[in-house]
Amino acid sequence: MIPESHKDLLDRPLFAHLATIGPDGTPAVNPVWTVWDGEFLRFTTTTNRRKYKNVVEHPHVAVSINDPEKPYRYLEIRGVVERTEPDPSGDFFDVLATRYGLAYERPVGDADRRVVIVVKPTRTTSQ
Amino acid sequence: MIPESHKDLLDRPLFAHLATIGPDGTPAVNPVWTVWDGEFLRFTTTTNRRKYKNVVEHPHVAVSINDPEKPYRYLEIRGVVERTEPDPSGDFFDVLATRYGLAYERPVGDADRRVVIVVKPTRTTSQ
Repeated sequence: MIPESHKDLLDRPLFAHLATIGPDGTPAVNPVWTVWDGEFLRFTTTTNRRKYKNVVEHPHVAVSINDPEKPYRYLEIRGVVERTEPDPSGDFFDVLATRYGLAYERPVGDADRRVVIVVKPTRTTSQ
Repeated sequence: MIPESHKDLLDRPLFAHLATIGPDGTPAVNPVWTVWDGEFLRFTTTTNRRKYKNVVEHPHVAVSINDPEKPYRYLEIRGVVERTEPDPSGDFFDVLATRYGLAYERPVGDADRRVVIVVKPTRTTSQ
């Protein structure tokens, strides 16, 4: 599913720009952390955030990641939110915080609202 | 409309991640060149590209730009495509190519299909 030529963009801790659809059908997009396990892309958010509310209502999303050293090189992944999972321990938040080098002190402050957004890719484009 | 604190993200030639809505209502997003004149964001594309077809059908778009040096710092602009304009001379393509330091030889190869997408911001979020 992910082209071999662009897998490094998922392996490296690069910010992904996650596009979602709002309740009124208009798009929103912002930079997020992500991690790819070969089958799913995962994102962390909280249940009070727009991103979460958007994907619950409209499960189709798209993600754009470009190469900071060669910004024309990019990978777009379109996909569907397969499920969201609570992250009450903050363990998944911690996986991403570690991956992206964020220094913070456990426990995760908003762990009671933390969720994992699990996305199944359906199509990619790249350049 | 654009917060003073984040104007530099539009002044610098940073890639913007432009989210559009496809004919089936699902989002697409990819990195693009842009330029801001204080009132409109402008993008270049061609009439045979998905991006163009998407915005003709669904004029709502969203744009995410983050700071390469501080990737948590970002600006999201949501807006509406006010109009698209032909760019038969490729002059607008040239403005962006120059801004982003692309070396190419005029004339612009696909100038007959080149268009300018003109977006009026309606809302911003930033961090």
